[in-house]
Amino acid sequence: MSKLLQDAVAEFAKLPGVGRRTALRLAMHLLKMEDGAVAQMTESLYRFRHDIRYCEQCNNLSDSELCPICANEERDHSTICVVEQVGDLMSIENTHQYRGVYHVLGGVISPMQGVGPSELKIDMLVEKVASGSVREVILAISTSVEGETTLYYIMNRLKQYPMVRLTTIARGIGFGDELEYVDELTITHALMNRREIMDER
Amino acid sequence: MSKLLQDAVAEFAKLPGVGRRTALRLAMHLLKMEDGAVAQMTESLYRFRHDIRYCEQCNNLSDSELCPICANEERDHSTICVVEQVGDLMSIENTHQYRGVYHVLGGVISPMQGVGPSELKIDMLVEKVASGSVREVILAISTSVEGETTLYYIMNRLKQYPMVRLTTIARGIGFGDELEYVDELTITHALMNRREIMDER
Repeated sequence: MSKLLQDAVAEFAKLPGVGRRTALRLAMHLLKMEDGAVAQMTESLYRFRHDIRYCEQCNNLSDSELCPICANEERDHSTICVVEQVGDLMSIENTHQYRGVYHVLGGVISPMQGVGPSELKIDMLVEKVASGSVREVILAISTSVEGETTLYYIMNRLKQYPMVRLTTIARGIGFGDELEYVDELTITHALMNRREIMDER
Repeated sequence: MSKLLQDAVAEFAKLPGVGRRTALRLAMHLLKMEDGAVAQMTESLYRFRHDIRYCEQCNNLSDSELCPICANEERDHSTICVVEQVGDLMSIENTHQYRGVYHVLGGVISPMQGVGPSELKIDMLVEKVASGSVREVILAISTSVEGETTLYYIMNRLKQYPMVRLTTIARGIGFGDELEYVDELTITHALMNRREIMDER
């Protein structure tokens, strides 16, 4: 087998979820693309890895010192939404409903995987809160054991700033979810946090 | 969103079977890789596209004029296995049972997709047979309508060389296939081409 092909297949197979069969299919697809298109693809991928930076204020992926969200003066810089990772930030941004800024932790506390509080950008968050410019911190962290641990750790670090409102995102039944398939903890939460129906009669 | 990230996601999403969600996951994975590893990956992919050649004898992917199979004097150059594409060649090579050489057509005749005989490397095959050095041509072409059309077209082109043995690979029930789920045409074939069981008493 061609060494060039072998190398391309081996490189594709390093990506998550890509086995040898898929890697071969992807490599063969490159041959159907224009030479220039492949050059552009590989350059974009390399430049992304090489030139990407982390926002100095919120730890979001960024092309410069500040990410476009932190650099945007029309966003509410006194409301910080704390998320585990950049993907979570993107999911929230995609709703186009949130006008505050973010703080990306870079993971959750996980003793099993050797991730302690110091591995996460928690000090950076506490400093921001200590500066006095923050009114609300929304903790949008997953409900896993690690997520809950991280949540309580952050709550503990921030309790010396009682002027700052601490909130978490609402848990409940998702739109389109069928009750039958929703786990009991979520249903219990959803029942306890039930809301009055607006009476429009 | 970071322009660098957007570009990387857009490029990954150009690959077959990769949607935006997967493209984002792949891009984020690049950040977990060493800078040098990403450089090596993107260079391998680009070099594959840019430097790859087609074997002048069999149309297989190759790093030089002749692919390793055609360049190998220990292979039987008088037996040619005709396949649609390089992937088929690899599948046969993986069995380590075939000692002849190949001829890669580069597709099958498909009027629907505008692929006529002249788009395939059929003349090249006929020339090889006309040179007189070929004893057997094995047609290992898929049993689709297009495959059968291609098969008959090639048989027709080669019938002026009656000294050359023309064969097709055996069709039958695959090892591990359950009869219940095998299509009727395959079962009919398998029944008609039944073989005597070796009596070892």
